[in-house]
Amino acid sequence: MDPLRFTSGRLFVLDQTALPREERWIEIEDARSMVESIAGLRVRGAPAIGIAAALALAVEAAKSAAHGEVRPDALTRAGEALAAARPTATNLAWAVRRVLAAADRALGQSDARAWSEAVRREALAIWEEDRAASRAMARWGASLFPTETLFMTHCNTGGLATGGGGTALAVVLELKRSGRPVAVWVTETRPLLQGARLTAWELLREGVPVKLVTDGAAAFVMARARIQAVVVGADRIARNGDVANKVGTFSLALAAKDRGIPFVVVAPTSTLDPACPSGDVIPIEEREPGEVLTFQGVPVAPEGAGAENPAFDVTPARLVTAIVTERGVNRGPTYEFGAD
Amino acid sequence: MDPLRFTSGRLFVLDQTALPREERWIEIEDARSMVESIAGLRVRGAPAIGIAAALALAVEAAKSAAHGEVRPDALTRAGEALAAARPTATNLAWAVRRVLAAADRALGQSDARAWSEAVRREALAIWEEDRAASRAMARWGASLFPTETLFMTHCNTGGLATGGGGTALAVVLELKRSGRPVAVWVTETRPLLQGARLTAWELLREGVPVKLVTDGAAAFVMARARIQAVVVGADRIARNGDVANKVGTFSLALAAKDRGIPFVVVAPTSTLDPACPSGDVIPIEEREPGEVLTFQGVPVAPEGAGAENPAFDVTPARLVTAIVTERGVNRGPTYEFGAD
Repeated sequence: MDPLRFTSGRLFVLDQTALPREERWIEIEDARSMVESIAGLRVRGAPAIGIAAALALAVEAAKSAAHGEVRPDALTRAGEALAAARPTATNLAWAVRRVLAAADRALGQSDARAWSEAVRREALAIWEEDRAASRAMARWGASLFPTETLFMTHCNTGGLATGGGGTALAVVLELKRSGRPVAVWVTETRPLLQGARLTAWELLREGVPVKLVTDGAAAFVMARARIQAVVVGADRIARNGDVANKVGTFSLALAAKDRGIPFVVVAPTSTLDPACPSGDVIPIEEREPGEVLTFQGVPVAPEGAGAENPAFDVTPARLVTAIVTERGVNRGPTYEFGAD
Repeated sequence: MDPLRFTSGRLFVLDQTALPREERWIEIEDARSMVESIAGLRVRGAPAIGIAAALALAVEAAKSAAHGEVRPDALTRAGEALAAARPTATNLAWAVRRVLAAADRALGQSDARAWSEAVRREALAIWEEDRAASRAMARWGASLFPTETLFMTHCNTGGLATGGGGTALAVVLELKRSGRPVAVWVTETRPLLQGARLTAWELLREGVPVKLVTDGAAAFVMARARIQAVVVGADRIARNGDVANKVGTFSLALAAKDRGIPFVVVAPTSTLDPACPSGDVIPIEEREPGEVLTFQGVPVAPEGAGAENPAFDVTPARLVTAIVTERGVNRGPTYEFGAD
């Protein structure tokens, strides 16, 4: 399932806030509206928002080129706004840097169309590389589970969260396609219910049996249902293997550790941030208290109650059995990710 | 805050499913409607449902007596239905047993009014003992926290969950009343949001600052906000100290252990079940999948998704720092609760 469409120079995002109720595609005509779509979680998932930002820059460059203009400063400003749309996922800033660097290299060519084309090519390359990474991660991840059938996952790490292939969910789907009778327990993932709304939807489309559980029930059900492994994605992985991912991940890692089952993180190398020494310095996005104080728009708490709403948490490397990237399997409990 | 009213022989429950939106009192005219109120969580909390069942038996006995009849068999059947309304909280069966035993002792008195009066007195004694237990637990619990101000709690353990005094929340309120500037982080407690709806409401009425967090965010916020202790109630405590409590409790205990802060359970001795050797044999109520698959009637998951919805989980004694009852503080990590 692709979260984005880019055809004949027109860019659309699938509005994930409306899923599974409705498949609504929104056209993105400039970087600013992509910033809104990213901040508003219409498109979400660390790899997906990187690709989305890259494609938005392609749209901006094409608009300049249509007027015969090469506007590197405007493109840089658009890139900065996109990179700032959400702070935690490192893929976002990474993709923007890559596209701006490609634009910069093409500056020597005075032709606006060639400059714009270089931007477009880099954005599409990021997208295509992410699809290839998903395929590779699926195979590497599957190699960790020779016989397992009962998995638990958190939030959404399927095609919707990436360039179409998925990260942790791709591993489960790889097993399913190889004939393994997998079943997946999905945490609903409050406050925005990506597990209930998106992961359940993607898995059911692939014919995988889904059992939803509340985030609070996950640890108990993990034991009761004899779950064999927990697989999750990541938004940023520090050099030491600390993993920032959707809030609730840390609890699942503690439960998996207590239970003695593998806790496996699946993410492309674009999610690695070797410049970040540990999870302590990963910026954690704080979202509106209203997301917690209401449930699908309905108030659930008395007036006067405050809320803390971190969108992510940090799982220390010591709880992570393995980190799977497109390049292979990194086994813990200690990690040392270097720059390329 | 009392969850029940019993005046001039008329019994009312405060409909906790409507809180904090509305304070709606429902009259209970027979045991059957109390069974519905307990199963439907209009009245909930282990001590409160014990008292509620006892009072419902008083209503039944009074109805017999009004016709000049002593009907021990009917009272026993009503007691069985009440005890079966929810399986996990041991207080429910305990209170029913106490009232039926009192009724039995009064059988020798052929006077229907004296029999009914014995039932009423026993129900009121259970209620009054629970209030006294709350006061004692509050003091014992407070003695565990000489300087702490930052607490996290789960579900609702205030007056609403008991005969009016509270268990874990009573400890925090005792500190507050003694002048301690306490603040409480409250987990929302999916699926039915007792934390968001009830605990936040009770704490704000007492002037305690409240920060709501999703259940998934609790472990991360526990570290980030430097929470100093987690206090929870219980629905049944096995002889070895394993604690059944609202689902999500186990995750908090794992997080507290990882963080090295006290995880304290506060419950009256009526919640102890020495006949139950360990948590493995505590019956865990499974509630409707619909509570997870929908929110206030609105579907949040795609059609075809299943859900598991255990209402409680079991926290192993090894994770419990102390169990506070009205008789004092029991320190872990091992426990041995005998029968009286």
